[in-house]
Amino acid sequence: MKYLLIASFFITLQLSAQSSDADVIKSIYSKALTDGKSYSWLDHLSNQIGSRLSGSLGAEQAVEYTKAEMEKLGFDKVWLQPVMVPKWVRGAPEFAYIETSPGKTTTVNICALGGSIATPNAGVKANIIEVKSLKELETLGRDKIEGKIVFFNRPMQADAIRTFDAYSGAVDQRGSGAKEAAKFGAVGVIVRSMNLRLDDFPHTGGMGYGDLPASQYIPAAAISTNDAELLSGMLSLNKDIKFFFRQNCQQLKDVQSYNVIGEIKGSEFPNEYIVVGGHLDSWDLGDGSHDDGAGCVQSMDALRILKKLGYKPKRTIRVVLFMNEENGLRGGTEYAKVAKSKGEKHIFALESDSGGFTPRGFSFDTEGEFISKAQQWASLFEPYLIHQFVKGYGGADIGPLKDGNVVLAGFVPDSQRYFDYHHAKNDTFDAINKRELELGTATMASMIYLVDKYGVN
Amino acid sequence: MKYLLIASFFITLQLSAQSSDADVIKSIYSKALTDGKSYSWLDHLSNQIGSRLSGSLGAEQAVEYTKAEMEKLGFDKVWLQPVMVPKWVRGAPEFAYIETSPGKTTTVNICALGGSIATPNAGVKANIIEVKSLKELETLGRDKIEGKIVFFNRPMQADAIRTFDAYSGAVDQRGSGAKEAAKFGAVGVIVRSMNLRLDDFPHTGGMGYGDLPASQYIPAAAISTNDAELLSGMLSLNKDIKFFFRQNCQQLKDVQSYNVIGEIKGSEFPNEYIVVGGHLDSWDLGDGSHDDGAGCVQSMDALRILKKLGYKPKRTIRVVLFMNEENGLRGGTEYAKVAKSKGEKHIFALESDSGGFTPRGFSFDTEGEFISKAQQWASLFEPYLIHQFVKGYGGADIGPLKDGNVVLAGFVPDSQRYFDYHHAKNDTFDAINKRELELGTATMASMIYLVDKYGVN
Repeated sequence: MKYLLIASFFITLQLSAQSSDADVIKSIYSKALTDGKSYSWLDHLSNQIGSRLSGSLGAEQAVEYTKAEMEKLGFDKVWLQPVMVPKWVRGAPEFAYIETSPGKTTTVNICALGGSIATPNAGVKANIIEVKSLKELETLGRDKIEGKIVFFNRPMQADAIRTFDAYSGAVDQRGSGAKEAAKFGAVGVIVRSMNLRLDDFPHTGGMGYGDLPASQYIPAAAISTNDAELLSGMLSLNKDIKFFFRQNCQQLKDVQSYNVIGEIKGSEFPNEYIVVGGHLDSWDLGDGSHDDGAGCVQSMDALRILKKLGYKPKRTIRVVLFMNEENGLRGGTEYAKVAKSKGEKHIFALESDSGGFTPRGFSFDTEGEFISKAQQWASLFEPYLIHQFVKGYGGADIGPLKDGNVVLAGFVPDSQRYFDYHHAKNDTFDAINKRELELGTATMASMIYLVDKYGVN
Repeated sequence: MKYLLIASFFITLQLSAQSSDADVIKSIYSKALTDGKSYSWLDHLSNQIGSRLSGSLGAEQAVEYTKAEMEKLGFDKVWLQPVMVPKWVRGAPEFAYIETSPGKTTTVNICALGGSIATPNAGVKANIIEVKSLKELETLGRDKIEGKIVFFNRPMQADAIRTFDAYSGAVDQRGSGAKEAAKFGAVGVIVRSMNLRLDDFPHTGGMGYGDLPASQYIPAAAISTNDAELLSGMLSLNKDIKFFFRQNCQQLKDVQSYNVIGEIKGSEFPNEYIVVGGHLDSWDLGDGSHDDGAGCVQSMDALRILKKLGYKPKRTIRVVLFMNEENGLRGGTEYAKVAKSKGEKHIFALESDSGGFTPRGFSFDTEGEFISKAQQWASLFEPYLIHQFVKGYGGADIGPLKDGNVVLAGFVPDSQRYFDYHHAKNDTFDAINKRELELGTATMASMIYLVDKYGVN
């Protein structure tokens, strides 16, 4: 009885030439939810390897692990694509406090922003001035800023429904705050964490000094939202409080790393390429489960499931696990460069880099007719509660592929919880829900299936 | 500068007679996300009061607390509607083990099902037989079952996309397993927890003995999914293992309790009633944050927000916090009985009892034209990613209102995580995401606004 049941189970899932698209997609979802691999792969990436900042041991181990796992899947080819990556290291834990009067201090939670320089060994202590925007620096002028630490404290917009809009609206403070404040003589920068929630986690993330001379670089750190509120409250009572912080992060020499690529050759149009991917590197504070371990394991599992179901792609489908999205985009840049140099015609690239949450749909970065085509597929996704097929952002790693022809697609999961974890210590495996992750895998695999079968035109 | 900003903020949010529906709904979402009360109310209900099983001190405190909070909101009327409720108590923590040979035991996680009788003081120890359905009892017959414990182990269907479908497909084992197994001479029942995840939490929930004579009642408990897998695995190796469990729950006499009701009188059609509600009671293991503290505070906040925005309802809108949904439905039954006896014309009742997760839409239990009307409102909800307006289930508490005229509506949040927490010890406040809860509040308030303004016909 038990054996009989197992046999019929496989029969149901194995596709035949007569299978309708609805049947295929049903099989994909069923396979993902009953026999998915993404969750156990992510468990290993997160709990056995951990954080994977470019150039770190974790990143190296993740390259080896995902290559080895893909080799077990019977893809036609699995290889590493070399790419030199920057290596920034955090060093010793950061330390910061607010000083209301000599000796009276309150410790606060900060972390260096990725790419920042260190403070002097003894730290920086100075008066601190709160601003809500880069523009406000100009209004204040050098007079008010010189010799001080600038505290950027514009919160993410709470009533933005798509939280990535709220992020876009606030992240200039993190990316360019130090560069701009340095021009007015600031000695350091403290940035409110990109987090919609009030909690104690500082959120790191990339920043840059642009074309500022290196002699003018100033250190930059993120402060937790709770402590940003505290600091702002204390400043409203007393403008003369001082802020101290110390960090000893540094930028080391570039090191060798890799994109990890797995491929199934197309049977009809082997020279048309479809990419599905995420980025293998992560920030160093958590274990990068949502950002972007989830996207990597979903991409791997999407292709594994299609293969397991016996689907033979017409076009060549590649899983690409990009290295160095977080602080350099070297992997995405290199992948596109190599693809161009080989004349590979990429027709579609799908990136999952918005967390492993319940899938809602896709956003397409294309000038072509593809969106209306995708919208015609919407009814196939309806049973799975997938409802967004809109023009929008594709993804950072696939961005360099943009050539006016390729359709870039961003996988869109529910975004409400993403910034609770993004770039922070709590982006860990326990924040992943297995079903939500697997539903994402299935949604991605289904789109890849349709694009492979029907093309993009 | 700061004051100016605050003033303009209120101007934006305050509605005028000229406000379009889109403006009103935008204000509702903005208010919920920037100035919502649901999260802090739920914090109190969950962390200061805790579990609220009918007849418990927690339930009594929750009645007092929510009445007091509603009284602060300036509704036209807040009152308690008396209702007698059953009082079932769990007693001492349950204990269970698998015995492979005399003295060799493995402890497993169980909890008594709500409404079950106790085991004898010394517990029950017997051989155990695994079945996958109620029907299988008949196939096996009294011969194979008499004197044994029956282990119901059919999992919820993993690839059901709507997890409530998976629940419906498995919950007969919990509700009727004991009643049916007793007919074949079983001495106890162990039921696999209604949980899609593998973990260590047993999930309680209601069960009943139907018209079985009390002398034939047998004790029933839920076992965690991990331990169900363990037990099944051990049984597949050795049919002769024994199972022991002990529980001393009991059904006491009915006690006095209350539905909590708040109301704003309609200006044009005061005799047409709109209800928005959830149930105030919960199971006793966690603190009932998702089931159904969330629905209660969302309902309260929905009406608070409409009032705060200066909206004057045409119809009478009531928040109803129902008592005793979990093990008796006495609150819902009493509310409907009183409404009928007073000739109150209820046109719409909305229940939130599926957890405080990201909102996806509504399901409507109605034979009328209302669904197509609601679907015409869909575009108003699109900016908030609300996309389900379908025929379906309303809710348990509002069910007794059904009279062929009233539209019953179920608020539908994302369902993927719900059964991780449902009726278990981990249904606690930390499993609530503030934004997701507040988005639900806003979605409910927006629907109430539209129904009030345009009616249901």
